[in-house]
Amino acid sequence: MSKVITPRAEDYSKWYNDIVVEADLAEQSAVRGCMVIKPYGYAIWEKMQSVLDGMFKETGVQNAYFPLFIPKSFFSREAEHVAGFAKECAVVTHHRLMNDPAGNGVVVDPDAKLEEELIVRPTSETIIWSVYKNWVKSWRDLPILCNQWCNVVRWEMRTRPFLRTSEFLWQEGHTAHATAEEAQARTVQMVHVYADFARKWMALPVVVGHKSPNERFAGALDTLTIEAMMQDGKALQAGTSHFLGQNFGKSFDVQFAGPDGNLQYAWATSWGVSTRLMGALIMAHSDDEGLILPPALAPIQVAMVPIYKADEERAAVLEKFEELAKALRAKGISVKIDDRDTLRPGFKFAEWEVKGVPVRLALGARDLAAGSIEIFRRDTLTKETVSIDSVVESIPALLDDIQKNIYAKAEAFRASRVEKCDNWDEFKEKIGTGKFLLCHWDGTPETEQAIKDATKATIRCIPVDSFVCEEPGRDIYSGKPSERRVVFAIAY
Amino acid sequence: MSKVITPRAEDYSKWYNDIVVEADLAEQSAVRGCMVIKPYGYAIWEKMQSVLDGMFKETGVQNAYFPLFIPKSFFSREAEHVAGFAKECAVVTHHRLMNDPAGNGVVVDPDAKLEEELIVRPTSETIIWSVYKNWVKSWRDLPILCNQWCNVVRWEMRTRPFLRTSEFLWQEGHTAHATAEEAQARTVQMVHVYADFARKWMALPVVVGHKSPNERFAGALDTLTIEAMMQDGKALQAGTSHFLGQNFGKSFDVQFAGPDGNLQYAWATSWGVSTRLMGALIMAHSDDEGLILPPALAPIQVAMVPIYKADEERAAVLEKFEELAKALRAKGISVKIDDRDTLRPGFKFAEWEVKGVPVRLALGARDLAAGSIEIFRRDTLTKETVSIDSVVESIPALLDDIQKNIYAKAEAFRASRVEKCDNWDEFKEKIGTGKFLLCHWDGTPETEQAIKDATKATIRCIPVDSFVCEEPGRDIYSGKPSERRVVFAIAY
Repeated sequence: MSKVITPRAEDYSKWYNDIVVEADLAEQSAVRGCMVIKPYGYAIWEKMQSVLDGMFKETGVQNAYFPLFIPKSFFSREAEHVAGFAKECAVVTHHRLMNDPAGNGVVVDPDAKLEEELIVRPTSETIIWSVYKNWVKSWRDLPILCNQWCNVVRWEMRTRPFLRTSEFLWQEGHTAHATAEEAQARTVQMVHVYADFARKWMALPVVVGHKSPNERFAGALDTLTIEAMMQDGKALQAGTSHFLGQNFGKSFDVQFAGPDGNLQYAWATSWGVSTRLMGALIMAHSDDEGLILPPALAPIQVAMVPIYKADEERAAVLEKFEELAKALRAKGISVKIDDRDTLRPGFKFAEWEVKGVPVRLALGARDLAAGSIEIFRRDTLTKETVSIDSVVESIPALLDDIQKNIYAKAEAFRASRVEKCDNWDEFKEKIGTGKFLLCHWDGTPETEQAIKDATKATIRCIPVDSFVCEEPGRDIYSGKPSERRVVFAIAY
Repeated sequence: MSKVITPRAEDYSKWYNDIVVEADLAEQSAVRGCMVIKPYGYAIWEKMQSVLDGMFKETGVQNAYFPLFIPKSFFSREAEHVAGFAKECAVVTHHRLMNDPAGNGVVVDPDAKLEEELIVRPTSETIIWSVYKNWVKSWRDLPILCNQWCNVVRWEMRTRPFLRTSEFLWQEGHTAHATAEEAQARTVQMVHVYADFARKWMALPVVVGHKSPNERFAGALDTLTIEAMMQDGKALQAGTSHFLGQNFGKSFDVQFAGPDGNLQYAWATSWGVSTRLMGALIMAHSDDEGLILPPALAPIQVAMVPIYKADEERAAVLEKFEELAKALRAKGISVKIDDRDTLRPGFKFAEWEVKGVPVRLALGARDLAAGSIEIFRRDTLTKETVSIDSVVESIPALLDDIQKNIYAKAEAFRASRVEKCDNWDEFKEKIGTGKFLLCHWDGTPETEQAIKDATKATIRCIPVDSFVCEEPGRDIYSGKPSERRVVFAIAY
């Protein structure tokens, strides 16, 4: 393991990219903007999927699958949606290749042009609502609560692994309701599912709030978001939940007969999180030694590294590790015994460190004789020697403690960089240093745009569960009256 | 529930389509050849995925994710592969839409033409081996055992839900090995994973065997298959595992230094099953009343239908059902209490029947008073009245029995339609009536092609674990000598 991680202080962006590579999470592919998610990275995503999927199902959501391709004309049906999503996308125009008559491999068969181009889904509202039309006749058919786990494509010019890629993996929930109230309640419910997941599983303190109209999803009447602070003080939008009103119901003619027999358009929500969560996880917790994973999402929670010279030592140490691993697995803890014989212990230590494994156990013949074992925790980079007999018993509590500590560290970091600001000059000076500034805003898109043009900062959200400041004041930029503060930050 | 299922005897193909629709499994979308997998259908697929994923991981396989798009030139690298896969496929040529200057919605931006076209993956050998090149330096990096669950696209002219669709879901495993022997062993191992899954979980008797060269995967040196018989006596290829030799290692220059320091090309396998398994499941077991699901894969194993007139009756019956459901769920059985108040019991009975729920319980106030309950099993369409007190205890064994019975029925059906055949006239007469004919074959592609041209029948496999007849004889068509019989059938 040759660690070549650029320190955060030197180059934060390079630090991030180094961790993605050195921790074996992902790599660039031959296709511009499309990444390969490597097994170790994918194992973290699988854990996220499994937990989220269970949380969705507990709220009555069912999984389904809708087509990858969307007819081009569908995008024209919802006016705002087309503006937001039908721009940079992958367009399928032909359905056949043929041998090059000139003998140079294969070429597109000009006779196989599609009558209507197909768009690789950038998001699936349009195709899904075209299907919901068949499913909805009466109020009894509602609500429809569907989710799909799938890939989507948004052609991106500048890409970064997990944070912004042309193809990414996500889940998109799409629900249809008989009333606006029910759809709004679902919008709120799902953003809180995301917040709970971020806090409990990712150890990520997030602020929940409404997006300003400028930052809303294309076609939404309201967008709720969870926003996290990264270690450079920038904001990362980690998940969104949209109340779409009757826009898609009307565009795709999804009407139902109410109990009174009158026809009405169905009300919509959509909500999604993506492999971007991987980027948030990496950026929020890791250090200059590599990845730090919260135990709740770590594919390997405990790595065991044997230390030996002779073969008999190796056998004795591995035997003890097998015994400990069995006891830990019985407690639901995932364990890796690193019995590779061609690598030195120091190399292995570095590898599990850079990969963010929360706990490492090291055991040699001398320890074994003394009945002791070395236990290392990744989050604090501290080690201590404990009794072998007590180690299995103590690990669940240690993992809990690490999970809490990682959350507390991230929260303390964020607290040190959140402040109220009421002065425009001060705002301009502070916003670029990586802060969440709680400021008054006059509620107009024009002011938000002017602030963005001047500083790159945007309103991350109008908070509803943290940093809520319902107090009158004056807009930081325009000086017009305001009822509450909102969160400004520079975002990924 | 208005049951409108065409009887098998009347129109087998329509019967299948009717079940897909009436059991709420899938439907056509607005995109030609792409289906929507509805929640009930998807829940079955999720169960399949979960079981298979566990079986793969037990053999050391890890999941990963590779790009959706494949540069066109990659297909030209492996000569046979390009012939097999680069024909009917979805070709991305542009990356942007723009507003139509003429005002008609959106059009493709002619300035956004890609330098090299991208193909939506029909299978991922090429892109994956282009990545493996980075992963493999030394024999110590091998084996690589990756799998991905994803969507693939093969442009199909005639499509049928699950059986043949332009987009489908599947898993594709791709392994790289240091020796031919190890790769061949993995090829065999994975086809047996598929066979175990088909037999134990899908209740599907399958025959495992080698494909003849004509029927091999494009680029494979050997293809192993599991073949199942449908109720019309046709064969359905349900899963394949390929030994790819060094073809992809050479095409993508994946070389490793062996223990002796010499550079060698890596050896490859790939193996996959798809949502086609859903088609096999439906076709193998269902009857003229609708879907029949093996309990092991049924999203709902027990449906409970209350029978009541007055509200008090309803409450009492539902209370008892809640009690039974809790006890059954504690045993790991999935239960649905059908408490919908706007539907009659007869309608509910029909719905759970057409959806293939293995066991249905019906309970009314009079039953409750008598301490009895009606239990219906879908596979035999029989009902009996039993004591409420014993019903929870008896259901696990009943589900086991249903699972075994479904398998036994399918196996008996197949047994009635497998026979040896040594006469060409007899062959021509019988093959169209839906049989697996065990015949001698001279081993040449020419003879296989001639038989196919004459009868549409193909060699489904050279069997290795069922119907193995290693006995000398003479080719059914050419009369040339043969060492063993192979399985001929007409296939889906």
